[in-house]
Amino acid sequence: MEPRLKVWIESDEGKILLSDYRVRLLEAVGATGSLAEAASEMGLSYRRAWGKLREIESNLGMKLVESVVGGAGGGSSRLTDEGERLVRQFQRFRRVLTDDAARAFAGSFGEE
Amino acid sequence: MEPRLKVWIESDEGKILLSDYRVRLLEAVGATGSLAEAASEMGLSYRRAWGKLREIESNLGMKLVESVVGGAGGGSSRLTDEGERLVRQFQRFRRVLTDDAARAFAGSFGEE
Repeated sequence: MEPRLKVWIESDEGKILLSDYRVRLLEAVGATGSLAEAASEMGLSYRRAWGKLREIESNLGMKLVESVVGGAGGGSSRLTDEGERLVRQFQRFRRVLTDDAARAFAGSFGEE
Repeated sequence: MEPRLKVWIESDEGKILLSDYRVRLLEAVGATGSLAEAASEMGLSYRRAWGKLREIESNLGMKLVESVVGGAGGGSSRLTDEGERLVRQFQRFRRVLTDDAARAFAGSFGEE
């Protein structure tokens, strides 16, 4: 038996700001340098990935991905500094909470 | 902003053994003393609640709810000792992890 969890961050109005899924999309943009490739990795259409990204940026009120025009490949995308920081923060949050879950599980189900 | 989480317990083979939803059903049986009322509280058909309960018991390999035959109301349901223990353990797990999430969130997003 093992504990599993899904975590997300909500605004005070109940809007989802960040989630495992949303951060996976940002990570994929950071790793591939391309929203099209990130979408493909996630099994999403480009249109849907683009819409999701705009939704995340709009909910958070910050720009997370920027276009890099030109270069050999004819342009690509990358995370902004704020985008990188948020991904890092969420990853840390998730990592800490996964460890916490193992401990809370052992503490709660190991007894009695 | 605040962290939200969904937690569940999986078997080594990836079967869901307990979850927020499943435990809510057990809690409702315990609170109402009736699977029919528990189903109604959860917005489930009796048939679906009954099936879900049997699935939980089968996955865990233990009896969690027992029928109490007779009495003024003509019979009711209640949690077995094992059922009560599991609900208590999951509630504790959830409570601890909710506190952990608040701490992990402050630690991860409060810095930098």
